[in-house]
Amino acid sequence: MGIVVRNIRRADRSVVDAFGELGVATIHEAQGRTGLLDVRLRPVYPGARVSGSAVTVSVPPGDNWMIHVAVEQCRAGDVLVVAPTSGSEAGYFGELLATALQARGVRGLVIDAGCRDVPELARMAFPVWSRYVSAIGTVKETLGSVNVPIVCAGQSVAPGDVVVADDDGVVVVPRREAAQVLAASRVREEREAVSRKRYQAGELSLDVQDMRERLARKGLRYVDQEADQQ
Amino acid sequence: MGIVVRNIRRADRSVVDAFGELGVATIHEAQGRTGLLDVRLRPVYPGARVSGSAVTVSVPPGDNWMIHVAVEQCRAGDVLVVAPTSGSEAGYFGELLATALQARGVRGLVIDAGCRDVPELARMAFPVWSRYVSAIGTVKETLGSVNVPIVCAGQSVAPGDVVVADDDGVVVVPRREAAQVLAASRVREEREAVSRKRYQAGELSLDVQDMRERLARKGLRYVDQEADQQ
Amino acid sequence: MGIVVRNIRRADRSVVDAFGELGVATIHEAQGRTGLLDVRLRPVYPGARVSGSAVTVSVPPGDNWMIHVAVEQCRAGDVLVVAPTSGSEAGYFGELLATALQARGVRGLVIDAGCRDVPELARMAFPVWSRYVSAIGTVKETLGSVNVPIVCAGQSVAPGDVVVADDDGVVVVPRREAAQVLAASRVREEREAVSRKRYQAGELSLDVQDMRERLARKGLRYVDQEADQQ
Amino acid sequence: MGIVVRNIRRADRSVVDAFGELGVATIHEAQGRTGLLDVRLRPVYPGARVSGSAVTVSVPPGDNWMIHVAVEQCRAGDVLVVAPTSGSEAGYFGELLATALQARGVRGLVIDAGCRDVPELARMAFPVWSRYVSAIGTVKETLGSVNVPIVCAGQSVAPGDVVVADDDGVVVVPRREAAQVLAASRVREEREAVSRKRYQAGELSLDVQDMRERLARKGLRYVDQEADQQ
Amino acid sequence: MGIVVRNIRRADRSVVDAFGELGVATIHEAQGRTGLLDVRLRPVYPGARVSGSAVTVSVPPGDNWMIHVAVEQCRAGDVLVVAPTSGSEAGYFGELLATALQARGVRGLVIDAGCRDVPELARMAFPVWSRYVSAIGTVKETLGSVNVPIVCAGQSVAPGDVVVADDDGVVVVPRREAAQVLAASRVREEREAVSRKRYQAGELSLDVQDMRERLARKGLRYVDQEADQQ
Amino acid sequence: MGIVVRNIRRADRSVVDAFGELGVATIHEAQGRTGLLDVRLRPVYPGARVSGSAVTVSVPPGDNWMIHVAVEQCRAGDVLVVAPTSGSEAGYFGELLATALQARGVRGLVIDAGCRDVPELARMAFPVWSRYVSAIGTVKETLGSVNVPIVCAGQSVAPGDVVVADDDGVVVVPRREAAQVLAASRVREEREAVSRKRYQAGELSLDVQDMRERLARKGLRYVDQEADQQ
Repeated sequence: MGIVVRNIRRADRSVVDAFGELGVATIHEAQGRTGLLDVRLRPVYPGARVSGSAVTVSVPPGDNWMIHVAVEQCRAGDVLVVAPTSGSEAGYFGELLATALQARGVRGLVIDAGCRDVPELARMAFPVWSRYVSAIGTVKETLGSVNVPIVCAGQSVAPGDVVVADDDGVVVVPRREAAQVLAASRVREEREAVSRKRYQAGELSLDVQDMRERLARKGLRYVDQEADQQ
Repeated sequence: MGIVVRNIRRADRSVVDAFGELGVATIHEAQGRTGLLDVRLRPVYPGARVSGSAVTVSVPPGDNWMIHVAVEQCRAGDVLVVAPTSGSEAGYFGELLATALQARGVRGLVIDAGCRDVPELARMAFPVWSRYVSAIGTVKETLGSVNVPIVCAGQSVAPGDVVVADDDGVVVVPRREAAQVLAASRVREEREAVSRKRYQAGELSLDVQDMRERLARKGLRYVDQEADQQ
Repeated sequence: MGIVVRNIRRADRSVVDAFGELGVATIHEAQGRTGLLDVRLRPVYPGARVSGSAVTVSVPPGDNWMIHVAVEQCRAGDVLVVAPTSGSEAGYFGELLATALQARGVRGLVIDAGCRDVPELARMAFPVWSRYVSAIGTVKETLGSVNVPIVCAGQSVAPGDVVVADDDGVVVVPRREAAQVLAASRVREEREAVSRKRYQAGELSLDVQDMRERLARKGLRYVDQEADQQ
Repeated sequence: MGIVVRNIRRADRSVVDAFGELGVATIHEAQGRTGLLDVRLRPVYPGARVSGSAVTVSVPPGDNWMIHVAVEQCRAGDVLVVAPTSGSEAGYFGELLATALQARGVRGLVIDAGCRDVPELARMAFPVWSRYVSAIGTVKETLGSVNVPIVCAGQSVAPGDVVVADDDGVVVVPRREAAQVLAASRVREEREAVSRKRYQAGELSLDVQDMRERLARKGLRYVDQEADQQ
Repeated sequence: MGIVVRNIRRADRSVVDAFGELGVATIHEAQGRTGLLDVRLRPVYPGARVSGSAVTVSVPPGDNWMIHVAVEQCRAGDVLVVAPTSGSEAGYFGELLATALQARGVRGLVIDAGCRDVPELARMAFPVWSRYVSAIGTVKETLGSVNVPIVCAGQSVAPGDVVVADDDGVVVVPRREAAQVLAASRVREEREAVSRKRYQAGELSLDVQDMRERLARKGLRYVDQEADQQ
Repeated sequence: MGIVVRNIRRADRSVVDAFGELGVATIHEAQGRTGLLDVRLRPVYPGARVSGSAVTVSVPPGDNWMIHVAVEQCRAGDVLVVAPTSGSEAGYFGELLATALQARGVRGLVIDAGCRDVPELARMAFPVWSRYVSAIGTVKETLGSVNVPIVCAGQSVAPGDVVVADDDGVVVVPRREAAQVLAASRVREEREAVSRKRYQAGELSLDVQDMRERLARKGLRYVDQEADQQ
């Protein structure tokens, strides 16, 4: 506790930015169904999608002091990722901090706690994914740490990891695997585009993905509804 | 497990369609305050209303194979109703399956688990009512069943039952009672239209519904606030 | 139980109305971080903000009879505040009651239970903050009370207290402290306007709020990321 | 609503009783992993195990009148199964009702709501599985039904079904399948006794259940921890 | 915030003590089904029952400083009642504080947050009712208040109110109504003793409480199970 | 996925064993209030305390195959730590697996999911800390990993870390810091023994820990209850 790590390594900016065109579900699948934060983290307003490099913050419950410390460590293209050391409903973050972050080019916030000033955040177009919308005030009394590895909403996040968030949730990609996961996500996206066309034309995934034989081997049986059934 | 029932009986299409103009709350009241699914099932985007015939799917936790099987059993005017055999946060359903269903004229999905690709579903106007928005991937390993009676979000749903969903939630109407519940819902709606006018004119439900005497009999007392009270 | 208090004292109308221009978070902070209702109470549609004088209603679980009784006690500028005596998912309130309240100039509803007819409420612009959206019907069998002190979503609310609600949640201000909290809220708002400008210009709260020395005294240490770190 | 079905069919008493020697997990597995009630239903005191024929009760939220009605329909060897029509934290049941049921030879209660008088129930050895321990009082104003099919804690329960409950939870077995599930449960139990001996002797399930080859086919890889790993 | 009220008035010691022989459910019923704290507050070990005068403590989330302050305000026959100003999972209380309280004759703790050192508390026979068992540490940085009115787990508690807790939960009785509620509780208990005897003898509450006629008037119908049903 | 790491490094056996005499709360405090797993993980029977070296298992939701694989990697003095890749209520573990683990000298299980056969586990004295007691069956279809770093109930756990669990919950100590945390825990325990004696003698923590001056500086005020107050 009480440590601020400066000058963290980040993934290539071009890689980080490219993730912003891909959906969270696609990326999660492409890296082997890992990295998805708890589904209880939701966007405070709909329609946003961001990718960025994680600046991580470990905060005490009900104390947002370290977020103020963390602002200084952020630069353009970052996403702030905040986790309390134990469950908290407090509203750690509002439009003043968002103003400070936006001035530095930070793209959004992911926090496993509460966020407030939702109307203002929507107006500013500063997206936040949080567990609660909450106006509960916080104190500034106890230290935490910035840019140490944290667990946020059930996932390990290291400083410099790539974080992508949209209406489906939030996914984290380890910094060193970012380029490779990006490539895999694109492959997946292209494959899905092909399937989509076939489904639009009325084909069935049973045929497109060749499932019938395996289903039969597992024992799937087709029967017609009996006359006296419900 | 492992059974697909084909050629289920459905309610009259005209009845099914007529439900689409009625609110979920009205229908729930009109059939004696029954049939409402757990209030934790919410629309993934606001403003949709659908009615349809239930094609039911029982799925294992974290395994969406049977949804692929169910697509083939759907036809125009249906609503897919999916329940995992135990609680699951997985994202069983996304825009590819929605594309396949929409191509067959299916009107929406009700699922007591997670759904993903929310931005795409909104764009496609394919409505989903789910317990979670979740990108968590699923496997295709274990059989379930299609068109067997299921319990979904606390209510029994039989294949061919009428399902109606809007921003208030989801209600199920047994197939054989559909025509009668439709009639009762319309009666209720007309009665409410009359009350609405009277309320708009400033009348009180105490008078419109003649409650004063019964309240007095139960012992309701009116007092004025005392000078020294709060 | 079974008491209706008439002619409650309210705060000055000008004070009540002035709160409507202030955010819930600001007011909560300005009165010493008190008065915020449980963060699980959420608006049924986004974008509304109201202030009003509380007409309080204590209701049995699943029984909305006393809301009908309470309508008569409401006047222009009020907000209805409803709490069940134990947890309830029922949909106590819909568009008919909203119609009756709107005809009297009531500005909104706060309820620690369920609310239905969400599409109609949005259309009417009658805002509701509730724990659930729920179409579950209620009965009219058991008395409660109107305009007695209640606990709603974890906060004491007395009749005539000022209630303010927006997308951030709901805050209650004791009637006698309303003028003073209003003044303090405005001071806070002005102070925040100054900070906002400085943050927009790229200044850090570490400097604007002069935090660096106190952080150092608490032991905060800055280090650079090591070469072999993650 | 408002119906009491008398003289329900029950499973053979010898079959019902025999289930009392088997664990809930075993029975759940033996009938194909179905029939288990929501895991949030817990015994109010540890150590009990009962089997019995279900007398079902559908009750309004916060209203226990129909439980009084149901007592008369119970006979020796029954288990009362109670579900509110929507979620309720009320304490529907206490030692007086337990006294009445015990006098008739009823073996226990399963309720998807609250139960009170826990110390007295433990003293009387009348076991209850409930979602809450709760002293919240109930009213007697609204009808429900007795011995109609209900959904209790996520499972369909028909009157006369066999219900088995122990510290692991509650499982329901359809009346007509009771004999066959009992036989399958015993087979499973015997098979487990054999495995247990082998495990006690230090054998691995990898070998006892012959899993190694299938794991390898799925791609499982064994590696040694590297020198520089954590 | 930051206030300690000394020398609070308490109810008559004989009245406070007499409540210790009555169950929480009985008292809750006898005072008109009010005063019961949220059912999620549970005893950390089974079998305890206490009554005492409330010393109230309002604490910040994750900060237990004011409990240390409160100890000094306690005397023999008290029960400490603690509520955080917003939801907290922290373990505010353990065996050292219990030792200090027990040395002063305090009978137990009620806390709408976490408690730790459960094995030691059981050994000391110092009972605690809490929302969580939690070892999460707390800080001592921010003031709260002692002996001000608080909301604890959904109920208003004033200093000097009588608090009774057992395995069924926790109920609060306003100080000024204590003698009267005690009398009403005893009446209820005696009446229940009479009913209990009749139930043990096999009588039905339908008859003992004379319910049959009112049930019939509400429309309850008895039918026999049909031959082809279930 | 699909990796089993063999021959993990563990902390010194004497250090691991020594933790077994210390409480979870003490260790959590001694390592700077870190390492505590989510408070919703509870022992399935009361009174157990274990310490051991973590063998970690990452499992798919509803699939316990990898636990069978993990047994072989365990040795005397270990504790199995299991986390599903997304939330699961399934009962992954029962008495057969416990038999296999106990035969190898494994001391207990920590699992962020469900566990079954609770009566048998109590009888065997094989302690389990789990999120649910659940009989829900699992499949054996999909690979996970053994002895990779995992997040379990909100904390990072690496293979070979020391895990300590008792009635207060579960704490993890990084392997390399084990000796130092053990020492700090003992220091803390001794300091608490001194405080305990003083509290038993009636001293106040306000004096023992010298809090009065700091409280006064923060602004704490003592007042006497006014005559007309509650």
